Amino acid sequence: MANRSRRKIAEATISRLPMYLRILLELTESGVAGVSSEKIAEMGGINAAKVRKDLSYLGSYGTRGVGYEVSFLIFQIQRELGIDHEWPVVIVGAGNLGQALIGSGGFGRRSYPIVGLVDIDEAKVGSLIGSLRVGHIDELPALIASRKVAIGVVAVPGEAAQMVADRLISAGVTSILNFAPIPVSVPAGITVRQVDLACELQILSFHEQHKKKVVPWPQVLPKSVSA
Amino acid sequence: MANRSRRKIAEATISRLPMYLRILLELTESGVAGVSSEKIAEMGGINAAKVRKDLSYLGSYGTRGVGYEVSFLIFQIQRELGIDHEWPVVIVGAGNLGQALIGSGGFGRRSYPIVGLVDIDEAKVGSLIGSLRVGHIDELPALIASRKVAIGVVAVPGEAAQMVADRLISAGVTSILNFAPIPVSVPAGITVRQVDLACELQILSFHEQHKKKVVPWPQVLPKSVSA
Repeated sequence: MANRSRRKIAEATISRLPMYLRILLELTESGVAGVSSEKIAEMGGINAAKVRKDLSYLGSYGTRGVGYEVSFLIFQIQRELGIDHEWPVVIVGAGNLGQALIGSGGFGRRSYPIVGLVDIDEAKVGSLIGSLRVGHIDELPALIASRKVAIGVVAVPGEAAQMVADRLISAGVTSILNFAPIPVSVPAGITVRQVDLACELQILSFHEQHKKKVVPWPQVLPKSVSA
Repeated sequence: MANRSRRKIAEATISRLPMYLRILLELTESGVAGVSSEKIAEMGGINAAKVRKDLSYLGSYGTRGVGYEVSFLIFQIQRELGIDHEWPVVIVGAGNLGQALIGSGGFGRRSYPIVGLVDIDEAKVGSLIGSLRVGHIDELPALIASRKVAIGVVAVPGEAAQMVADRLISAGVTSILNFAPIPVSVPAGITVRQVDLACELQILSFHEQHKKKVVPWPQVLPKSVSA
């Protein structure tokens, strides 16, 4: 098998896989069995060449004039995303944000069950949020070991975020989803996704600013001329 | 000015500008006046060529051996992101999520002041959350017109998200930050950012899956051979 190659998938491609999956699931619900890269691109608001390149990482090339087989592509993406497994999640922080996350329905029950919710505030420990009993943050190591938790969610104020991330990691978590408004530092081998409100607002104001008036891009000259 | 060109900035570049800004503000707080693309790349976890390309869109090229002037780069990025203006924001949904957003500190007071919080639930209308009085969703048009609001935040359950987005847009909002777990459809000219919990979890499980065991990438053959 000399041709067998192991290619590193680009981070930007990984971040688009969930979107492709959502589009394909929509299509399959509408009874669509085959789809072109152009149609996927249109539904995702990106260009078709990028779709084809992204999907080629999965080994999917589609067939000229027919496109991609929706059900097989769903299978491939779900396998890549690990959605065929269960990934138990713990949430640290039982305040408004933790409660909102639990109530949001964003954790698919099947793939990302919330197996624990802990807080440092003794007053909250023992209370029920939905069907979850709030545990103490000191319970993290036992919880993470017994439930084989890989993903921890940081839903605490910014000043507590790093401490919480450190405790999650030392308890054995290897992926962190950080909702605190401050980035956390983690050792190599730990994956972090930061949900950053300020960043989202800045991206929107960028677009607003460039909608209001057409701002000419700064003069771009070759380096040799600009001096 | 034959060389004056107006270039379209790539969406991926736009989405990295907030990160560059955060890094540069950190550097300036530490008293650093000049920085190389390599240093920015290291702090941002991306490669230096990408940093240089991104910053070239701003007309910033740095100087060989010296790098970029931190304060000027901050000025340029803030200008592009529109952070030199004020962008008043309204939040729809006074539940746990809306309350968490208000309490999060993620809305910088200066650039993105929250000027209104509304809900459809009469029981919530009139109550105070922080210093904000909860208004009724019917107040949106007056609120948005009087406070010149361009950005609306959807912090409601998934089933209400499209209705809320429609009402925000018809009231004059042109950018939407959607925290509901369901994407919303908007007409051309309206910008949407979706904060998608399921998507973040899927990206983490992708990485977890590929950490656990080294999964060989599917065999990739040139198209002409794969048939």
